[in-house]
Amino acid sequence: MYFGSDNQSGASHKVLEALINANQGISASYGEDEWSQKAVEIVRTIFEHPDCQVFFVASGTAANCLALSSMVKPWQTILCHQQAHIAMDESTAPEFFTGGARLVTLDAGKGRLTATTLSSYLDRQALHIPHNPVPGALSITQANEAGQVYSVQEITELAQLAHAKGLKLHMDGARFSNAVASTGASPAEMTWRAGVDVLCLGASKNGCLAAEMVIFFDSALAEGFEFRRKRTGHLLSKGRLLGAQVEAWFADGHWLKLAKHANEMAMRLVEGLSVLDGVDIVWPVDANELFLMLPKDKVHYLQSQGAVFYDWDDTTLPADYVVKETHQFVRMVTSFATTQSEVDQFISLLR
Amino acid sequence: MYFGSDNQSGASHKVLEALINANQGISASYGEDEWSQKAVEIVRTIFEHPDCQVFFVASGTAANCLALSSMVKPWQTILCHQQAHIAMDESTAPEFFTGGARLVTLDAGKGRLTATTLSSYLDRQALHIPHNPVPGALSITQANEAGQVYSVQEITELAQLAHAKGLKLHMDGARFSNAVASTGASPAEMTWRAGVDVLCLGASKNGCLAAEMVIFFDSALAEGFEFRRKRTGHLLSKGRLLGAQVEAWFADGHWLKLAKHANEMAMRLVEGLSVLDGVDIVWPVDANELFLMLPKDKVHYLQSQGAVFYDWDDTTLPADYVVKETHQFVRMVTSFATTQSEVDQFISLLR
Amino acid sequence: MYFGSDNQSGASHKVLEALINANQGISASYGEDEWSQKAVEIVRTIFEHPDCQVFFVASGTAANCLALSSMVKPWQTILCHQQAHIAMDESTAPEFFTGGARLVTLDAGKGRLTATTLSSYLDRQALHIPHNPVPGALSITQANEAGQVYSVQEITELAQLAHAKGLKLHMDGARFSNAVASTGASPAEMTWRAGVDVLCLGASKNGCLAAEMVIFFDSALAEGFEFRRKRTGHLLSKGRLLGAQVEAWFADGHWLKLAKHANEMAMRLVEGLSVLDGVDIVWPVDANELFLMLPKDKVHYLQSQGAVFYDWDDTTLPADYVVKETHQFVRMVTSFATTQSEVDQFISLLR
Amino acid sequence: MYFGSDNQSGASHKVLEALINANQGISASYGEDEWSQKAVEIVRTIFEHPDCQVFFVASGTAANCLALSSMVKPWQTILCHQQAHIAMDESTAPEFFTGGARLVTLDAGKGRLTATTLSSYLDRQALHIPHNPVPGALSITQANEAGQVYSVQEITELAQLAHAKGLKLHMDGARFSNAVASTGASPAEMTWRAGVDVLCLGASKNGCLAAEMVIFFDSALAEGFEFRRKRTGHLLSKGRLLGAQVEAWFADGHWLKLAKHANEMAMRLVEGLSVLDGVDIVWPVDANELFLMLPKDKVHYLQSQGAVFYDWDDTTLPADYVVKETHQFVRMVTSFATTQSEVDQFISLLR
Repeated sequence: MYFGSDNQSGASHKVLEALINANQGISASYGEDEWSQKAVEIVRTIFEHPDCQVFFVASGTAANCLALSSMVKPWQTILCHQQAHIAMDESTAPEFFTGGARLVTLDAGKGRLTATTLSSYLDRQALHIPHNPVPGALSITQANEAGQVYSVQEITELAQLAHAKGLKLHMDGARFSNAVASTGASPAEMTWRAGVDVLCLGASKNGCLAAEMVIFFDSALAEGFEFRRKRTGHLLSKGRLLGAQVEAWFADGHWLKLAKHANEMAMRLVEGLSVLDGVDIVWPVDANELFLMLPKDKVHYLQSQGAVFYDWDDTTLPADYVVKETHQFVRMVTSFATTQSEVDQFISLLR
Repeated sequence: MYFGSDNQSGASHKVLEALINANQGISASYGEDEWSQKAVEIVRTIFEHPDCQVFFVASGTAANCLALSSMVKPWQTILCHQQAHIAMDESTAPEFFTGGARLVTLDAGKGRLTATTLSSYLDRQALHIPHNPVPGALSITQANEAGQVYSVQEITELAQLAHAKGLKLHMDGARFSNAVASTGASPAEMTWRAGVDVLCLGASKNGCLAAEMVIFFDSALAEGFEFRRKRTGHLLSKGRLLGAQVEAWFADGHWLKLAKHANEMAMRLVEGLSVLDGVDIVWPVDANELFLMLPKDKVHYLQSQGAVFYDWDDTTLPADYVVKETHQFVRMVTSFATTQSEVDQFISLLR
Repeated sequence: MYFGSDNQSGASHKVLEALINANQGISASYGEDEWSQKAVEIVRTIFEHPDCQVFFVASGTAANCLALSSMVKPWQTILCHQQAHIAMDESTAPEFFTGGARLVTLDAGKGRLTATTLSSYLDRQALHIPHNPVPGALSITQANEAGQVYSVQEITELAQLAHAKGLKLHMDGARFSNAVASTGASPAEMTWRAGVDVLCLGASKNGCLAAEMVIFFDSALAEGFEFRRKRTGHLLSKGRLLGAQVEAWFADGHWLKLAKHANEMAMRLVEGLSVLDGVDIVWPVDANELFLMLPKDKVHYLQSQGAVFYDWDDTTLPADYVVKETHQFVRMVTSFATTQSEVDQFISLLR
Repeated sequence: MYFGSDNQSGASHKVLEALINANQGISASYGEDEWSQKAVEIVRTIFEHPDCQVFFVASGTAANCLALSSMVKPWQTILCHQQAHIAMDESTAPEFFTGGARLVTLDAGKGRLTATTLSSYLDRQALHIPHNPVPGALSITQANEAGQVYSVQEITELAQLAHAKGLKLHMDGARFSNAVASTGASPAEMTWRAGVDVLCLGASKNGCLAAEMVIFFDSALAEGFEFRRKRTGHLLSKGRLLGAQVEAWFADGHWLKLAKHANEMAMRLVEGLSVLDGVDIVWPVDANELFLMLPKDKVHYLQSQGAVFYDWDDTTLPADYVVKETHQFVRMVTSFATTQSEVDQFISLLR
């Protein structure tokens, strides 16, 4: 019963098979290989955007921070939700890659960034140039750190507010496939058609071993990116490692099948949990993450029975949430590898 | 009637005279001159700390950020009040100088950083290494951005909390002389005896043209500082410019006389303003800055009569402050150059 | 007949098999997995150094530059041979990772860095502090960019000169296994026993898909490395990808078997080529790289027959080498995947 | 008899007087003051370029490195002469300000950078993108580190070569006034009309206490400069300090009178020295610096009599220069403050 994280499994069977097949023979290095070239074309097709610029790297932090370094000047700020992965879990990589731009975190009280919050922040920026740092980009996470998915409408509103003030819009899509699977919106609708300038699309959490994409819908922002990737050590010599994973991941809708399964396992958990006394599902579950209040004795019992899930930080709760001493705030994550029987066993133990 | 800022005057008469005298003759460059050497000794005497390491630079941003770069690793955070000058008014210099350390701002709701706020923040840092940025330093401003002065007791408490968690304590002393003049505490009591590791002492706002000091009470932190200063372009070739100002500024208590005057002018304003209807002095006035709510018609009238002071940012008000539509939030600053007649004229116009 | 580069093959059969096996099941992320833990232990055993600190990353540029960033201050220089990979082929990654340290390239005229050259450079550094950049580290490549291997004696001499002046010694071991296979010196003899402080050991060119190690023999230098790796985006979430490769690569001397084969193929080429008229083997062939002058018509003929190898930069020739207009300078590289029949076919075509 | 450096005097009488006058009264801070505004206009007039963008800072390292950071990307290189001040005497400031661009030094053997050397370097750059750093700017010093002045013709040729390959041309004009005084070329002819994109014009060595200018003839390069200056701590609060110096320095040709005097004193030294046995003037003396071989006994005698000048680094000699054991290589510098009697006394002692 593993609900610890979606980066604790290996690759999906299909992705692994692709890696095995790609292992044969000689091919050009540094991303000039045939797999990488094909993978770029697949991305362009799936996003219905023949001109988007696509780059592969091996880690999500690299993808996010390389993207951001292409979007802001070092004297600008990057606005994001207070629980954003770039703010909480990537050390000071955003500052390092951008040459010292600043993260400004918004909206501690809610699980998602709202147009109202953004608008209110931007409106009260009476900038005293060059003393005050200047907003340069907005970054949102899809699906986000509270397990929620922004609707196309919400993204559009945020994009319009951002663009009106000259900010670029970055989307951290570490769980983008879960968001697409959840809403049914097309990849294009959820990104560039809604105003996203750069998407970091993560495959590692959903079926790959290590494969992340930086997709520039605004090609001008991609200028110099090949140098950025190289000088940060993120251009792998054997590009087939990334290209083969990505190609297989997208082929025949594999990525969405994996994501759909993960989401369904999460919903099955929700259904099982929501009827139980003493369990509070803190945030709406839109994708493959659940944030719960569980009775502490239940937590200990479940863990003693082999269930894996993690305590979560109280400071990420809604601002007005009253924590009971008897309860523990926990996060559960499902993945493509989660089985129905794991879910059912968990629920039955909890009953 | 100039109450715009304390950096809008030239040097005091004595400091200017020192510059004129120091202009003669040949002397070693790059801070090896006799004036700089003497100035270092004066600092050591005044702070009763014969081993402190002292460096001169020409700007407050340089002093603060060079100091911080000596105190934190690039993967650490610098905690400060939300209105701190380093957070609001130094662009992204802290990130640039430190190689990408992060500022974390605390306590929007109050005009000063309290031990409670700091303690509460530090306690809830359940660090997931190496993902989360790690607190590395605390920075406080003395006198601070709300015109308030931390007592020796408060500094001691903050220092103890900081040191207990391995943080270094930085003091931005752009208006340190005003704080010393206000409290009567000795420079040593207000700094290293209370736990301050590095003080940035500003003379530019209080009688000099451009002279700021970085004073390391913890000499180990000063290792490499001469390289830091050089490679950031802050080692001036004609060091006498800085050394002569500093020497004259400290001589015969000149610095405190200037600061005392500025503070007295501020208190004279407070006395005159506090009896007037419709005027609200928002924060206690401990030094040479006043933050006021003035009726808008009065503001316009005063400005039409030649009074200079600036509208201030509402977001720096106490969290629960209710702003009246009829009023304007303003800042007034006095300096060594403020005259009693300017103050009296201002008050009489406001009556 | 592929002699283009040793990064144009996939993984060896054994390494691929290990990846397949490691794909199963749940394991901790971010390098806490069992494969990574075992791989660290194998490194310690092979290097006979139970306390060395070992970190895995996916690219050689990342390994080298992360290592260097742990070894020098930003105001120091890194000395290296003019043809060093860090100077020629890693963009400005050394500057980026180190926060702006400077590369100083030595000895254009020879294929290897000599103690005489180093000594002469260090002796004439009359440092005017803090104006001049200060030597902080020496970096050598083993096997180096001219296909040569430093003897243990040479390394020891360079290390002694470096250490005597306070420099740390870095070894870029992208082809370290070829060097070990070539000399028969033990890994320990060739590194820490000779004075190497930090080794970057590359497995990607010799049987892995993407696996590089940073090995600190001086543990003090490793302080903070986990933060450095994270904030540069080089901590992979699914650490098994790296750990499994490394473990299998070292197991049962697999790494040396692969390297030995590559070296033997290079020697077979040398033997075949050295008896041919009009062919000049420019540098001694110690490992798996050959640098040759070939008649231009032969070059064209070989390439038309499917032989792959690259023109090489004339500026890397010995200083006094006279290039004939009829000849082309080329590089040939053998790898674990090079077959004897490829070599023999190449030689017979050239006859 | 001071010939140590041109940064060991104070300000000229006129510049000091201007500082005294500018000390009175209230004025806007951060460069918005009237003196700074006027100084910008004077620069535009003197350079016959009404649109050039002009910024003031207090140190030459800051001027040079801020300028360069506006001219190159962090993955580019800056080409310069091996003895360039930016390469020898500014620590690793170029790397720091540019975010890690690389200095590439050319032409060790000669006292000036020639079009042939530049052309030869640029021609052999067979760039393997993105692996190799890419030339982004050329920096020349006028007058240069060997005391020589580039002719307008030479600058034009270097500019054309640079621009043809997409490089920007930077001029380090720490002794620009000496060069103008020496050649009689107008400031415009020697800079933008010859192809210089950005000039760093130093006044500190020639009559000011601390005043350096960054002058963008290509205004597009100045975009964001105000942020760069602020976040590096180089925006002084009391801008009058810089503005007043610059204004007075340029007024009535004062800057050229000072430079002309310094140059004349250097020529007087040359005339006196050139007739003496055992003295070799190594480089042509075009401005205010002399590089000499003096008999060692003469050196000791002169210094014992109070003459100040410095031993110089043998590695900066012409490549084929044979140093006699009996002689010492020294540098002598004249300045606006050098007197005829100092020169004559020096010569007579040497006879």
